[in-house]
Amino acid sequence: MSEKLPTLPELRQQIDAIDVQIHELINQRARCAQTVAEVKKAEDPTITSFYRPEREAQVLQMVMQRNQGPLAGETVAKLFREIMSACLALESPLKIAFLGPNGTFTHAAALKHFGHAAITRPMATIDEVFREVEAGSAHYGVVPVENSSEGVVNHTLDCFINSGLKIIGEVELRIHHNLLVAEGTQLKNISRVYSHQQSLAQCRKWLDAHFPKIERIAVSSNAEAARLVKGEWHSAAIAGETAAELYGLKKLHENIEDNPSNTTRFLIIGTESTPPSGDDKTSIIVAAHNEAGALYRILEPFYRNGLSLTRIETRPSQSDIWSYVFFIDFEGHQQQPQVKLVLDELHDRVRELKNLGSYPKAVI
Amino acid sequence: MSEKLPTLPELRQQIDAIDVQIHELINQRARCAQTVAEVKKAEDPTITSFYRPEREAQVLQMVMQRNQGPLAGETVAKLFREIMSACLALESPLKIAFLGPNGTFTHAAALKHFGHAAITRPMATIDEVFREVEAGSAHYGVVPVENSSEGVVNHTLDCFINSGLKIIGEVELRIHHNLLVAEGTQLKNISRVYSHQQSLAQCRKWLDAHFPKIERIAVSSNAEAARLVKGEWHSAAIAGETAAELYGLKKLHENIEDNPSNTTRFLIIGTESTPPSGDDKTSIIVAAHNEAGALYRILEPFYRNGLSLTRIETRPSQSDIWSYVFFIDFEGHQQQPQVKLVLDELHDRVRELKNLGSYPKAVI
Repeated sequence: MSEKLPTLPELRQQIDAIDVQIHELINQRARCAQTVAEVKKAEDPTITSFYRPEREAQVLQMVMQRNQGPLAGETVAKLFREIMSACLALESPLKIAFLGPNGTFTHAAALKHFGHAAITRPMATIDEVFREVEAGSAHYGVVPVENSSEGVVNHTLDCFINSGLKIIGEVELRIHHNLLVAEGTQLKNISRVYSHQQSLAQCRKWLDAHFPKIERIAVSSNAEAARLVKGEWHSAAIAGETAAELYGLKKLHENIEDNPSNTTRFLIIGTESTPPSGDDKTSIIVAAHNEAGALYRILEPFYRNGLSLTRIETRPSQSDIWSYVFFIDFEGHQQQPQVKLVLDELHDRVRELKNLGSYPKAVI
Repeated sequence: MSEKLPTLPELRQQIDAIDVQIHELINQRARCAQTVAEVKKAEDPTITSFYRPEREAQVLQMVMQRNQGPLAGETVAKLFREIMSACLALESPLKIAFLGPNGTFTHAAALKHFGHAAITRPMATIDEVFREVEAGSAHYGVVPVENSSEGVVNHTLDCFINSGLKIIGEVELRIHHNLLVAEGTQLKNISRVYSHQQSLAQCRKWLDAHFPKIERIAVSSNAEAARLVKGEWHSAAIAGETAAELYGLKKLHENIEDNPSNTTRFLIIGTESTPPSGDDKTSIIVAAHNEAGALYRILEPFYRNGLSLTRIETRPSQSDIWSYVFFIDFEGHQQQPQVKLVLDELHDRVRELKNLGSYPKAVI
C-alpha cells in the first residue's frame, strides 16, 4: 500500500464529518423553504403549490455551471432535484399525473423532473392526464411528446388543441437501442429484425450499413419485439436495456441508433404561466390560412427576428377552424420583446394562434 | 405581509449560498470515496465492488440519530442514500438484479436500498435473480420475502435452500390497503370484495367489523381485483394507491389494514458476508430431527441466551435431508459471542444448519 494514502478509518472519519455538515445544510435549506412558503402565503392565502419551475431550472443551471467534479454535473443536479423535492414536500407534496403504467419512460420522466418526494399517479390515457390537471386533482401532468417509441406523440398534440392547459416544462430522457438476439443465435442466420417502426427508423442507417438485406418488421412496441425474438433463432430485435434484461436476450450490438443523442421528450403541463428562467422555450399552435406560401409566411418573422425554431410539426385538422395546424417550438420567452413582436406579427398572418406557454429548457 | 419575514429575493440568496456549500461538500465526499476505493484496490487488486452494506447502514443510523428537522429523518436518510449511491457509482456502478417487471414493489425496494445511480435489471423469476448473482452478472439481488401480496414468499425461501448466496441486507416498504369501488357504487349495494388472499387476510378484522356479510373472493393480484371492480357496480376491491389511480376507482375507506405498520419485506442477496453494523439480524435455515419437541429444542438456546427471534417460518422438505425445515430470523450478528454460542449449540440439536448470513436491520 502506498505510504501517501490515508487509512480507511481516517477516510471514514472525514466522510462522517462532511456528512454532518451536509445534513445541517440540507435542514437549513428546508427552513428557508418553509419561510419562502410563509411569505408566499402572506401574499396569497389561497396558494396551494409552492413549486416554481423557473426557479428550479435556475438552481439546476447554477449547479451545472459551477460543478468542478469529480461527480458529473448531471449527477449533482439530480441530487439537488431530490433535495428541492424533499424541501417542497415539507409544505405540500406535489401531485403529478402521468401516462402510466408505472415503470414506463413517462414515469421515469416524472420522477426525473419532480424528484421522489412528489406523489406520482399513473393514468391510463393522455386525455386523463389532461383532465386530472384541469380538474385540479393533480398539480401537474407529464405526457410524452417527441420521438417516442410508444406512438403517442400525435395524441398529445391533439389534446393541446382542445385544452386550456399550459406547458410549464420539458424533460428529456436519453434512449439507447441495441440489436438483441436469443442466446445461441448466429449472426449469419439472422433473416429478420423486429422493432417498433419508430425505432426501426431511428436505426435505419445502421441497419443499411450492417444488415442491408434482412427483413424489417414493425411491431407494436420494442418490448413486443424482444418477446418475439425470445423464441425465434433466426431473428433479432431492436430494443432498449430493459427489454433485453426482461427477456434474457443477448446484446449483439449496443447503441446502434443513428443519432447518438437520441432522446425522448416529455412535456410538463399545468394551469399557470411560467416566468423566465433565463434559458427558455415557447410552444405555439397556429392554424394557417388555406393559401400558397402559408408556412413561409408563418416562419418568416422568426427568421427576421433571430428566433431559432427547435421543432415544427404539422397535424391534420380536427375541426373547421383548425383546418391546417402547425405545432412550433422556438427559443425564447414570451416576456422577451422580440418574442412578443413575433407573436403579434403572427396574429395577423394566421387564422388562429394558441400560445401553449414559455418554459425552461430541460437542464439535465 | 408581516414585517419580520424576509423578502423572497433575500431568501433565494440565502438558499443559493447554502446550495454552493452543499455542492462543494458533496464533491468533497466524492473525492474521499475515490480515495477509499484507491486504498481498497491497493489492498486487493481484484476487488470489483466497493459497496459495504454495514458501512451504509451505519451512515444512515447516524443520520436518523442526529436529525433535528424540519425534514424528517427518513427523508434526509433517503437523500444520503442517493448521495452515497452517486459517490459509489463514480468508481463502479452497482449492478442489481431484482424480481421484475419494472414498477413493482421489488423494483421500488431495489431503488430504495441502492439509490438511483445503481443499474437495476428486472428478472422474470426469483430463480433468475439468484442465478444472476451467483454467476457474477449482478453484484446483488433483491427478492421479496415477507407479507407480499404477490405470493412469492415461499419461493424465495426455497431458493435459499439450494443456493450458496448470503443475505446482506433487508428493505422494508410500508404498504397501505384501501377499499375501492367504481364511481357511482353505493355502499349498501356492495355484495362482494375482491383481493389477493394475503391482502384479504391483512384486512380481515376490518372486514369483519365493517362488512361481516359480504363475500370475499381471492384473485391473482390486487391489480386484478381493481380491474374486475372497474366494471362491477356491486363489488369492491382491496388494493393500494397505484391500482386505485390506474383504474380510476374511488377510495371508500383508506388504510384499512389491521396492522397499520403493515410492511412488505425484501432481502438483498450477495456472495460475501457482512461485518457488524451495530444493529443487525441473522437468518438461518435448520432441518429438525424428526422427533417430538424438535422445535422446542431449537428455540430454547435463543431464549436462554437472550436473543430475540424476529420471524420463524416452516416449510415442507424438498429432499430427504431437508425433510422438515425452519427459517429463523433473530437479532444479533454472528460475530457476537452469544450468537456464536447459540449457533454452536444448535449444530448439535438439528440435522442440518445453514447460516444465510448476518446483515444490518433496515434503517429506513
